[in-house]
Amino acid sequence: MAFLPAEIIKAKRNGNVLSFDEINEFILGYARGQIPDYQMSALLMAIFFKGMTTEETLSLTKAMLHSGDVVDLSSVRGFKVDKHSTGGVGDKTSLILGPIVAAAGVPVPMISGRGLGHTGGTLDKLEAIPGFNTQKSLQEFVNLVRENLICFIGQTKEICPADKKIYALRDVTATVESLPLICASIMSKKMAEGIDGLVLDVKYGSGAFMKTPALAEELAVNLMAIAKGYGKTVTALLTNMDQPLGRFAGNSLEVEECVAIMKNEKFMGAHGYDLYEDTRELSLQLSAHMLLLAGKGKDAKESYAIALEMLTSGKALKKFEELCGIHGGNLSALPKPRHRVDIVADKSGFVHGFHTESIGVAGIIIRAGRAQAADIIAPTAGVEFHVKVGDEVKAGDVVFSLYGDDKDLLTSAIPLLKSAINISLPKIAKPSLILKILS
Amino acid sequence: MAFLPAEIIKAKRNGNVLSFDEINEFILGYARGQIPDYQMSALLMAIFFKGMTTEETLSLTKAMLHSGDVVDLSSVRGFKVDKHSTGGVGDKTSLILGPIVAAAGVPVPMISGRGLGHTGGTLDKLEAIPGFNTQKSLQEFVNLVRENLICFIGQTKEICPADKKIYALRDVTATVESLPLICASIMSKKMAEGIDGLVLDVKYGSGAFMKTPALAEELAVNLMAIAKGYGKTVTALLTNMDQPLGRFAGNSLEVEECVAIMKNEKFMGAHGYDLYEDTRELSLQLSAHMLLLAGKGKDAKESYAIALEMLTSGKALKKFEELCGIHGGNLSALPKPRHRVDIVADKSGFVHGFHTESIGVAGIIIRAGRAQAADIIAPTAGVEFHVKVGDEVKAGDVVFSLYGDDKDLLTSAIPLLKSAINISLPKIAKPSLILKILS
Repeated sequence: MAFLPAEIIKAKRNGNVLSFDEINEFILGYARGQIPDYQMSALLMAIFFKGMTTEETLSLTKAMLHSGDVVDLSSVRGFKVDKHSTGGVGDKTSLILGPIVAAAGVPVPMISGRGLGHTGGTLDKLEAIPGFNTQKSLQEFVNLVRENLICFIGQTKEICPADKKIYALRDVTATVESLPLICASIMSKKMAEGIDGLVLDVKYGSGAFMKTPALAEELAVNLMAIAKGYGKTVTALLTNMDQPLGRFAGNSLEVEECVAIMKNEKFMGAHGYDLYEDTRELSLQLSAHMLLLAGKGKDAKESYAIALEMLTSGKALKKFEELCGIHGGNLSALPKPRHRVDIVADKSGFVHGFHTESIGVAGIIIRAGRAQAADIIAPTAGVEFHVKVGDEVKAGDVVFSLYGDDKDLLTSAIPLLKSAINISLPKIAKPSLILKILS
Repeated sequence: MAFLPAEIIKAKRNGNVLSFDEINEFILGYARGQIPDYQMSALLMAIFFKGMTTEETLSLTKAMLHSGDVVDLSSVRGFKVDKHSTGGVGDKTSLILGPIVAAAGVPVPMISGRGLGHTGGTLDKLEAIPGFNTQKSLQEFVNLVRENLICFIGQTKEICPADKKIYALRDVTATVESLPLICASIMSKKMAEGIDGLVLDVKYGSGAFMKTPALAEELAVNLMAIAKGYGKTVTALLTNMDQPLGRFAGNSLEVEECVAIMKNEKFMGAHGYDLYEDTRELSLQLSAHMLLLAGKGKDAKESYAIALEMLTSGKALKKFEELCGIHGGNLSALPKPRHRVDIVADKSGFVHGFHTESIGVAGIIIRAGRAQAADIIAPTAGVEFHVKVGDEVKAGDVVFSLYGDDKDLLTSAIPLLKSAINISLPKIAKPSLILKILS
């Protein structure tokens, strides 16, 4: 080894800029087990305090990316595009935008994650469909993207093994909340997909990782710089996660919502509007920006029209059903929860906001989500949202419903959920879903 | 465990003050192997950046101290006093002041360390005396202090095991240079000795850990706060380490110097003064402050007179010879180096200073010191200092001599040593040995 690990830690600790070679040797040495966990955790903490330049973050991403395999999609014709969301509650857009974009003829190679903490994961949602298998080899993945323009798989052990090892270490050493580490972790996995373009859904608010629009924008700018450093085209949407997205959070329930939207159904709540509307609109907007990157449409408006056509014509649904077939999933056998528990407003007023992260935590309690990576998900467990910010409610109105097969678990989540809605005066406007688009 | 280790790391990372219970659980959990190295190194790096309050440092010291045994000196009558030096090149005062203070009737329980890096260690110096055995049980140690008022032993595995484990980890994770970690490491070991009072020799300058008087004073103040927190009386001397102390650095050579001083010999160099003078004077000053803490003498002047009397009367020498006998050391068989290589000044002028740390590193090259804990020391290897800051030298004058049994090693250290002296114009005053006394 050309560099002593302790000297690299010291250099970062002292605020020096590390070279690509220094970062690369450290990361590869760690991935190979030549550098122990205790030196990596010291470096991670030094990075937490001293940060990294864009150049260093790019080096870190590159080192993590090349710690494993990079998917070769050169056999797939066309502009390959994916979306990454920083995660939220009820965020199910991948299941809709993937089929929309693929239906429009653009390849969508999606390598997705599982839920951890208060946010859900695309793989868990898909696996709520009986038989749906996301375990495919990288070669099968390439073949499926080529033949069907879309495939969903999970992280394989060949992709970014250094990231996997580092992420587990960050989780137990209080080094998760570091912008360069977050950026490198996200982008190394996305760059490993072999994509040409990327749309980022960077969420802000009470249910997002970044609590304010300013922090979300900082994250977006940093993620975009890496994508651009790799020569990828990239667009970032800053979107609202001050309340859950759509009608449901919970795996089978979210699939139900997505299918309903692709069937052009509406679900009119007690307040006179379609509770699928925000999921539908965000999915269309993200699809439009993916299509625009791929050259489908000359501007966002035209691309949006193409996305809308894919949805309303039923072509997206057809693509999704085709996808389920290929992955072995039986959509008609989607399980239904056995129990429902309603939660009512304890006062009258306007919905001023949600503690969205608490809703995610309630989801963990009822096993719709995971506290730890090894936790088992209950596919039918979830929450229904009957109201949104700005709605007027009366004491006794149903605001949430809890679903699942274990009634005791549902009951135990009631107090947390009850405290997760803020009903107050005066009247308040509905927030906009998309705050800003960066490209 | 009442606290999650990751939550404690996070609290410190966020700059919160940790409670004694939090610190204690973390340290004991680590010492027992329940908390892994990677969490400890993350906490150490967080402490490096966020520091610790005096209260937290005291808690850390206490936790490390009670990770092992504390010596019970209640069977030894009188006020037990020790000295701790932050380390330097040619710093051999323990071998003189221990006998002086014990000869004056004050018990001196000395648990000493080995040299590491550019600074020497008392144990290595003593072990240069053939047969000298520093490996004694804590019970033998207590008995010897009771019967002879002085005993030198090394760290045992019973004393501060947490410190041993943490120190090794700090060394490879770039977390050595942290004031609270330094203070807790030093003081946990000193508090484990069962002493009543402590004199600190806190060195500053090019050969010291702390390069400036201000940094040394900060360290002294922090160390004293811990000693006082334990109800110990404490005095700190800030002393100059911008040049090596005395005539020699190197284990058998330093013993030779100490014995000569205790025999009241002088070594007049080419510049008309005794080259033993600074070692002698610092030993007497430190002895005086130890005696003063123990109530021998009503002020520093009186205590100094007592120390001087112990030295000039030959009582200190007698005590040292007695000590050698008890430890099995044969002082008359002290080995002599087989080779000597002189290094001359390459220009004329005044000695403006030394790169004292480089002299220590030259000592490592010739195996007078250790780069790593497992390195084997060559007892006769060392350096002689013919000149001090302020001396006028002519090109060609001998400024250093290298000693040892391996001539090739000596030759290889010449370039570094040559560059370790700064000869310049104009005339410059001799620096004072003791800058400040804090109590």
